Amino acid sequence: MIRTNNNFNFLKGSYLFSEVARRVNEYKEKNPDVEIIRMDIGDVTLPLCKAAVDGIKRGAEEMSNKETFHGYGPERGYEFLRKCISETDYIARGINISSDEVFISDGAKSDIGNFVDMLPSNARIAITNPVYPVYVDANIMAGRLPEDEATDIENKGKIIFLDCTEETGFLPKLPTEPVDVVYLCYPNNPTGVVMNRDELTKWVDYARDNSVLLLFDSAYEAYIRDENIPRSIFEIDGAKEVAVEFRSFSKTAGFTGVRCGYTVVPFDLKVVSDNGKQFLLNNLWNRRQSTKFNGASFVVQRAAEALYTAEGRSQVTEMTNYYIENATLLYNKLTEAGMKVFGGKNSPYVWIKTPSNISSWEFFSLLLEKAHVTSTPGVGFGSTGEGFVRLT
Amino acid sequence: MIRTNNNFNFLKGSYLFSEVARRVNEYKEKNPDVEIIRMDIGDVTLPLCKAAVDGIKRGAEEMSNKETFHGYGPERGYEFLRKCISETDYIARGINISSDEVFISDGAKSDIGNFVDMLPSNARIAITNPVYPVYVDANIMAGRLPEDEATDIENKGKIIFLDCTEETGFLPKLPTEPVDVVYLCYPNNPTGVVMNRDELTKWVDYARDNSVLLLFDSAYEAYIRDENIPRSIFEIDGAKEVAVEFRSFSKTAGFTGVRCGYTVVPFDLKVVSDNGKQFLLNNLWNRRQSTKFNGASFVVQRAAEALYTAEGRSQVTEMTNYYIENATLLYNKLTEAGMKVFGGKNSPYVWIKTPSNISSWEFFSLLLEKAHVTSTPGVGFGSTGEGFVRLT
Repeated sequence: MIRTNNNFNFLKGSYLFSEVARRVNEYKEKNPDVEIIRMDIGDVTLPLCKAAVDGIKRGAEEMSNKETFHGYGPERGYEFLRKCISETDYIARGINISSDEVFISDGAKSDIGNFVDMLPSNARIAITNPVYPVYVDANIMAGRLPEDEATDIENKGKIIFLDCTEETGFLPKLPTEPVDVVYLCYPNNPTGVVMNRDELTKWVDYARDNSVLLLFDSAYEAYIRDENIPRSIFEIDGAKEVAVEFRSFSKTAGFTGVRCGYTVVPFDLKVVSDNGKQFLLNNLWNRRQSTKFNGASFVVQRAAEALYTAEGRSQVTEMTNYYIENATLLYNKLTEAGMKVFGGKNSPYVWIKTPSNISSWEFFSLLLEKAHVTSTPGVGFGSTGEGFVRLT
Repeated sequence: MIRTNNNFNFLKGSYLFSEVARRVNEYKEKNPDVEIIRMDIGDVTLPLCKAAVDGIKRGAEEMSNKETFHGYGPERGYEFLRKCISETDYIARGINISSDEVFISDGAKSDIGNFVDMLPSNARIAITNPVYPVYVDANIMAGRLPEDEATDIENKGKIIFLDCTEETGFLPKLPTEPVDVVYLCYPNNPTGVVMNRDELTKWVDYARDNSVLLLFDSAYEAYIRDENIPRSIFEIDGAKEVAVEFRSFSKTAGFTGVRCGYTVVPFDLKVVSDNGKQFLLNNLWNRRQSTKFNGASFVVQRAAEALYTAEGRSQVTEMTNYYIENATLLYNKLTEAGMKVFGGKNSPYVWIKTPSNISSWEFFSLLLEKAHVTSTPGVGFGSTGEGFVRLT
């Protein structure tokens, strides 16, 4: 019989959100008249803002004329969009990131998933627990298994979990054994907690002292309203030598169905292969993207560009304000109801401790059947998520 | 220093088409007044057809209303598009492929590159020589090196080249040693040659007899005008048990900048991992896409759907006819000029033997400097491409 990648053996049967969707659909089929309030997958509900809609239409119009038609674009994305990002999201905030350090893609999920191609096959990967499942699953597919399953596999790399619990305020402690890579995501998915400047500086210093690559998922930065919370890891001195930052227009501008994100790989970030040859990680990522990707859709890049106009920026702020108000409302209501709640501030996610210590999936079912609210079971994000659910 | 994936050591410095673009730009800077005729990268020159432009605009309009807004879509693509593909491209041609065997993506290059995630790490991969560089480079990144470089690396998989030369009509012979995977692309990039039904049947039978996975790149099927040449590998009996087919809207509908393609993974295709566990490859690919991809842009899927209307189909045919006429003209002119020419029939590519046995890159420079025509050096597609260039 035809052989396949063995590492799929070690994946859970289905991707977490597919499983949630399956159970919700099953309930819907049995209860067709019940109106369900979806608070599980972090999808947006407001329509796409006018600036972006017009950007897509303008892009389509350009494609219809021979003179303004765009065929294959640069794999790293058009300069017109990379320039907006560099100037607005970084330089205007005092962070010196040039447009050639920015790579446009069809979304942060793709970039985060595909970035495992950059890592040594035997890398030791530190991942917080609970966590967005993509970090774990993408590494498992590449043969880097969670420590307990990896012990009998020589020199194949592994995943080391950094437990985040109620006691630690859901923040990770520095690894106690040598690692090559650390994934961090703040504002955090799923717990909604944020990392302040001191805490983030601790991680950057650790990475510099120990030659560790920080993969920083900043998909929710637009929800930060507190001036003391860093919106980019590159606000921290020295971060450009050790960190890659992933960002998305999904949660800021409602691009979940439009598909656009970007990744910053600073020129200061040097890497070495086992034979001692040095590379700029920026060059290697460009090589990967040139080989296995052909750039984001031109019309989508025009839509993202439109978010950087005055009109676009005000529409995006209006949108994120709406979601923040919802999260705050949810946080307050749940707290008033006597629930123990985390996140919900500077973040679209609210992380709830289940009542009476019931399991995540039990509370998921209870919320679905009694309140007709869908949630995501915390245990789906890792063992320390047991006894919690995520609402959004 | 931070460690990286060692396999990047084994890649050529830059992706072939990036290198061609670099040399062309260098020439342009030195000769700003010369008008250059681009026949190198297989990009389209006609604007996007009206049906697709209108499809994008309609999609954007839907995104602007709360009632018709689309957030996260199904990772495998919307049923409305998968149904069109299944019915028009397969069932209408007597091939029983259901919509759930079709996966929509942002392009065939991504799918072909990412499909290496499905292969066992120690797979023996047979690839034709010359070949589209993505097959080779994507496997090298995953640690499967060309045979001559792989000898000292134990149990890491390898790439075995199947030489295609003038003598074999640029068709490969069956592998003489055991392999797990064979990449085939017909109409071929770069040589422009096609595979007839008998030849393709030979490969399907070989794959079935030897438990080999066939990865069939059918990106240029819309250029086939000869009824005797299969447009899909699934026209061959038994292919559904051994083959995956990659297709693209890039070369049919001018989607190189729009970005949409699809991959067919039949339910009949069963695979096994080293511990004897069986999977449907369709399920595994869905798991991979759910984890590392978030679906193609909604507006792009609307554009692709529009290609299947009567209006869209006639516009696509008009477009491919135009490119075929150009290829035929090119073929005839070059033949009249005494050049030895392959392809150019049922294909957008023309493959030319260099005069006086000069090298591919020498002829590339000659064409650029004397005729102001850009080409792609055959040697960039593999050692047996030396002494040829590709025009398109």
